[in-house]
Amino acid sequence: MKTYTVAILGATGAVGQEMRKLLEERNFPVGTLKLLASARSAGKEVMFRGTPVVIEEAREEAFQGVDIVLGAAENEIAMQFAPAIKAAGAVFVDNSSAFRLDPDVPLVVPEVNGEDVQKHKGIIANPNCSTIITLTAVAALNRISPIQTMVASTYQAVSGAGVAGISELHQQVSDLEAGKEAQIKTFAHQIAFNLIPQIGGEQFEGYTSEEMKLQNEGRKILHLPEMQVSCTCVRVPVVRSHSISATMTFQTPVTVEQAKAAIAAAPGCKLVDDLKQNQYPMPLDTSDQDLVWVGRIRPDLTNPGGITLWCCGDQVRKGAATNAVQIAELLIQN
Amino acid sequence: MKTYTVAILGATGAVGQEMRKLLEERNFPVGTLKLLASARSAGKEVMFRGTPVVIEEAREEAFQGVDIVLGAAENEIAMQFAPAIKAAGAVFVDNSSAFRLDPDVPLVVPEVNGEDVQKHKGIIANPNCSTIITLTAVAALNRISPIQTMVASTYQAVSGAGVAGISELHQQVSDLEAGKEAQIKTFAHQIAFNLIPQIGGEQFEGYTSEEMKLQNEGRKILHLPEMQVSCTCVRVPVVRSHSISATMTFQTPVTVEQAKAAIAAAPGCKLVDDLKQNQYPMPLDTSDQDLVWVGRIRPDLTNPGGITLWCCGDQVRKGAATNAVQIAELLIQN
Repeated sequence: MKTYTVAILGATGAVGQEMRKLLEERNFPVGTLKLLASARSAGKEVMFRGTPVVIEEAREEAFQGVDIVLGAAENEIAMQFAPAIKAAGAVFVDNSSAFRLDPDVPLVVPEVNGEDVQKHKGIIANPNCSTIITLTAVAALNRISPIQTMVASTYQAVSGAGVAGISELHQQVSDLEAGKEAQIKTFAHQIAFNLIPQIGGEQFEGYTSEEMKLQNEGRKILHLPEMQVSCTCVRVPVVRSHSISATMTFQTPVTVEQAKAAIAAAPGCKLVDDLKQNQYPMPLDTSDQDLVWVGRIRPDLTNPGGITLWCCGDQVRKGAATNAVQIAELLIQN
Repeated sequence: MKTYTVAILGATGAVGQEMRKLLEERNFPVGTLKLLASARSAGKEVMFRGTPVVIEEAREEAFQGVDIVLGAAENEIAMQFAPAIKAAGAVFVDNSSAFRLDPDVPLVVPEVNGEDVQKHKGIIANPNCSTIITLTAVAALNRISPIQTMVASTYQAVSGAGVAGISELHQQVSDLEAGKEAQIKTFAHQIAFNLIPQIGGEQFEGYTSEEMKLQNEGRKILHLPEMQVSCTCVRVPVVRSHSISATMTFQTPVTVEQAKAAIAAAPGCKLVDDLKQNQYPMPLDTSDQDLVWVGRIRPDLTNPGGITLWCCGDQVRKGAATNAVQIAELLIQN
């Protein structure tokens, strides 16, 4: 079997660690694994398939001989190394937002627009986490009739801010329950027992950068340049699954029965929708697995033919690492 | 100064206790205070204006001589005692949902439709907590141009399930942080580090009873029988303030500037809207006070002339106890 040299850029963060786990879990044909991180982490060892792998400092030379780079680093790091990755002839599957809206870069959710992978010129972008989860949930409805508008409110886990976000929530909760003050470092405000209705800086007409991603990235992924999205992004004291409440209108009416049947059959989705039995998607149930759970499907009472639903997915996995590894799987199939 | 005999029915719950605090805080002209609860609590003493008051068992005879009854009990208790309260000649300001949609019962948010108090026939209903908070936030916009549609997603605190809900969140968090299992009693699922997208049972087309309140009660309070609302209600691990993300369309377009100016001037509201300074309403800041904080005001990108906003208010106070005491204040003014 053909094997590939795969590098993870940003291997020590929450997403980078999950990518390593997923390459193993999904039996990706890795010949050699290179784990790249900052100089601070270089020299440490982590296990991959029962064998220790030494973390290397991310430097331009490190990409020589690599076939696929899974990027789990910040925008600046992604932009810094992209030329070296391309020069080395590797394909860069990048989870940062640096290249997502570049017309030369496919932006891919495999269950939604997997065919776009083939158009790549060396870089393929992994979409925003809430965007991946929402689009995986609604793609099947969009196949019934194109989405025209979407009003979405997100409930985003602290894992969106990486390992530091997760520790901060746990530390604050422990301190508060012990009668101590909560220390604030990663988020702008206390997140334990609170909600922070801001993710990202201001970008457009009072919307944050995170809020605009669902419209801007959603248009590109769904090939719907006219889709209009009003999104509100809120950080919630949940560990690692994001949830989204979404209300959509379509070009032609979609019924609840059609929507449920389409979602039940959609790749990457699990229909969990039985209010009488208290069954619906919840962050606790959707964490540490790959499906986007969809439920609470009902008619939009403000627009006949519209649909309202609720979906949850693991932000670190399907919202980031799993989606990137799925893209890599498509790459080696082609 | 004229004083009144006031009774609190359900005096030992989260809302009943807050009503007692508020009567004192707001210098309501209470001559005699009667605290009514179940037989289990009868005989216990609590303090009111520095004097102990003995809790009495709620029985029909207890309402003799009472001017105003503040109801903080469940629907069945409210329905059980309403005839005795009326027969005693008292006015029943009831926080349960039992009488809210009764055409003979005004449903009042003082800042929105205070004039409706005058139409009462012995009962005035206090609206649902999320409805009070949302309508206090948007009433000023509705005065610019009537609201036609609203898509709302709520982020509701555990206090909505009373004292038991609050203890359950703290207990689960402590147990989980200590490595123990979370015990589930009050809510259908673990609420610590989780979200539960169901409040109330199924009522209409897959919407829960709680979700339909914003439309049904909102129509009555705003005198907008045609207003269409699609609401999603979600329980979040927050102690006592509810938050709502709402997107509205109006009969004629409303601009962001108009909306901000109107909300800044609206009674019961506080405009907190400065994304660059990380200033917006948050549950922690809005707890244990009476104003509804409104921010993140921006144009609805799916409907030109529509508005999207975020609001938070203390569910136990403005969402319940404060609103009821404000109704009592209107009653004694008239």
